[in-house]
Amino acid sequence: MATVGAAALESSRVIAHATTETKNKALASIAEHLSDDRQNLLLANLLDMDKALSNELDAALLDRLELNNERIDAMIEGLHQVASLSDPVGEMTDLGVRPSGIKLGKMRTPIGVIGIIYESRPNVTIDAASLCLKAGNATILRGGSEAIHSNQAIADCIKKGLDDAGLPQGVIQIISTPDRDAVAELITMTDYVDVIIPRGGKGLIQRLITDARVPMIKHLDGNCHVYIDDHADLKKAVDIAINSKTHRYGVCNAMESLVIAKSVADKILPKLAAMYTTKQVELRGCKKSRAIVSTINEAREEDWSEEFLAPILAIKIVDGLDHAIKHINHYSSKHTEAIVTENDQNSRRFLAEIDSSSVMINASTRFADGFEYGLGAEIGISTDKIHTRGPVGLEGLTCQKWVVFGDGQIRQ
Amino acid sequence: MATVGAAALESSRVIAHATTETKNKALASIAEHLSDDRQNLLLANLLDMDKALSNELDAALLDRLELNNERIDAMIEGLHQVASLSDPVGEMTDLGVRPSGIKLGKMRTPIGVIGIIYESRPNVTIDAASLCLKAGNATILRGGSEAIHSNQAIADCIKKGLDDAGLPQGVIQIISTPDRDAVAELITMTDYVDVIIPRGGKGLIQRLITDARVPMIKHLDGNCHVYIDDHADLKKAVDIAINSKTHRYGVCNAMESLVIAKSVADKILPKLAAMYTTKQVELRGCKKSRAIVSTINEAREEDWSEEFLAPILAIKIVDGLDHAIKHINHYSSKHTEAIVTENDQNSRRFLAEIDSSSVMINASTRFADGFEYGLGAEIGISTDKIHTRGPVGLEGLTCQKWVVFGDGQIRQ
Repeated sequence: MATVGAAALESSRVIAHATTETKNKALASIAEHLSDDRQNLLLANLLDMDKALSNELDAALLDRLELNNERIDAMIEGLHQVASLSDPVGEMTDLGVRPSGIKLGKMRTPIGVIGIIYESRPNVTIDAASLCLKAGNATILRGGSEAIHSNQAIADCIKKGLDDAGLPQGVIQIISTPDRDAVAELITMTDYVDVIIPRGGKGLIQRLITDARVPMIKHLDGNCHVYIDDHADLKKAVDIAINSKTHRYGVCNAMESLVIAKSVADKILPKLAAMYTTKQVELRGCKKSRAIVSTINEAREEDWSEEFLAPILAIKIVDGLDHAIKHINHYSSKHTEAIVTENDQNSRRFLAEIDSSSVMINASTRFADGFEYGLGAEIGISTDKIHTRGPVGLEGLTCQKWVVFGDGQIRQ
Repeated sequence: MATVGAAALESSRVIAHATTETKNKALASIAEHLSDDRQNLLLANLLDMDKALSNELDAALLDRLELNNERIDAMIEGLHQVASLSDPVGEMTDLGVRPSGIKLGKMRTPIGVIGIIYESRPNVTIDAASLCLKAGNATILRGGSEAIHSNQAIADCIKKGLDDAGLPQGVIQIISTPDRDAVAELITMTDYVDVIIPRGGKGLIQRLITDARVPMIKHLDGNCHVYIDDHADLKKAVDIAINSKTHRYGVCNAMESLVIAKSVADKILPKLAAMYTTKQVELRGCKKSRAIVSTINEAREEDWSEEFLAPILAIKIVDGLDHAIKHINHYSSKHTEAIVTENDQNSRRFLAEIDSSSVMINASTRFADGFEYGLGAEIGISTDKIHTRGPVGLEGLTCQKWVVFGDGQIRQ
């Protein structure tokens, strides 16, 4: 792994100042090779799928592991899309002249070497590598052992693409040895790796938190709330509460807890409960909610913190805004929370006081997404509080250095 | 420590949306109490100094530990200065409308709970606490055991100041138990602490890197370079090389290695060597430099990586820009590097390719400083590559969350 790290560090110097044209050429060329090698990819994936089937892996994992023509097309499309994004590297901002006479500004710059640790989805290999490359970083990717053949086939396409663009192979390296120690080494190589971005379930992330020495940009979980305020427009409240929960269940920006001000609960909860029940969403509520709608099940304490990723919803009746903010800040995972209100002061307070990566007024939590935010693509959603919060696109894969333009100035 | 952490987390919710007026009132009031309690502070510091003397601590440490009237005045002045800085919290940027109809922007927000670990200087208590408070964060400060009485006396002033402004005591907590386990707990309390900022020597930082689970914004060391290019104006080169090294020796933004293009070395090195020698700077150079000036000592490999913090300078003759960039990126600590050149293409390449927190053209490395950059004050200089690089002021103590303004929009 030290050899891999050293190659990444050396290549990071090259990709950091590669032209936009060169980087886009590499992306286009990788896309071309994926298209040309489509049959190889499908065959390699069949080997992984066979092994997964014989190991009796569950259906959800099999689905994530599978490559088909449509998914290969999506990877190709993704590469072209990343190529079309504007290059963040070298952007200068905040230029000004200081009293000493020096001209000072900030220049956007790659982070350096990024390690990506992910589980079964082979498409992450392309999605993550393409964003990191466009942002000028060298990447070390470590996928799940169940996708080993698929990832090796994808790695071949990446190698050829880098070569076509005249970029060193160290710019994108895929670790596909089944060796489990590779992860342990990757997350502790502080001399070579600047940041680790894990893509996977809570179990993976928790393990990395304990063992990593390299800083991480991580997505823990998405326990998102919608709060229906005393001053809510009830039509908007119904739309947003239904959409946030039922648009898709298995996604991190789905609502998991609905919080309702007691002054409007009588009016809106029976209607919402009926709609959720039609959609077969299981409701788990506090005592007060169950006094209004008797078919709501009793919520246990752990339901308030749970990311269900399923048609299950926790419902809490609160006294009003203060109580709602307190409840949400206590239980949320700092991903995304929304308020439904027509009261300007309440929405301003919610924005200021809710400590989450996305805070919304009168909109569905489902908008918390790199594409919806116009980032073009995202490598994940950060629930951390330093470097970058929320959807992480190209900008989140860069940092800024200070640049000083002088004319011989010295410090007095 | 868990009690301290929980109090900090709870107080962080309060200080996060405290008004600028309240925060400034707390700062002004702490300043007033420092002034009123001046005699207590000096007496408390005498106890620490006595103990340090009887423990035969070295002169540099004694100097850092000492409080006198001038230093108390500087702390008071610092508090007023931080109060005068504009409040970064709540600043909205990047507002725009997305195709879905939602209005999207970013809002600047406190990080939450910040842990500061520092060594003997009691003034760090005030400097760090005031910046963290103004940026809306709760702070847990853990100073060195040799400053325990001084820090307790300062803590009393802080307590009274918070109280005057109606802020909870958990906003700034000073751990002054001699218990060594406090640090170990502080750097692993991921449930309560969002980031650790260490202020101290390399030994302290290295130890924290190994043991910390909470993310850190850290300053490792400052091995700064000046490169005198083939196209340098030699008058500027002399000014900058002398100022960067000799303006102050014990500071992290002092030059430690001078890199000179071979085409100009014959002309400039004898002159520079004579000037350094007059100032009693020991020169340690490569073979080529010693062929030009025979009195230069031979540099050992470790001299290229060393932060001397002393009148010692490493000198390397290089073939030209490529060689200079390679040498600097290999040995630098990513703090600050400067090029002296009149060639636009070379300065652009140096800016783009040097991977350091500050990169300068024709200016002294001594400008890499929060005050010189107009941040008003700094809590340290980050040599990390995520979150923030270089001098860390109020902005570096905040992050940004996404804010969405809708009118009932749902995801299609």
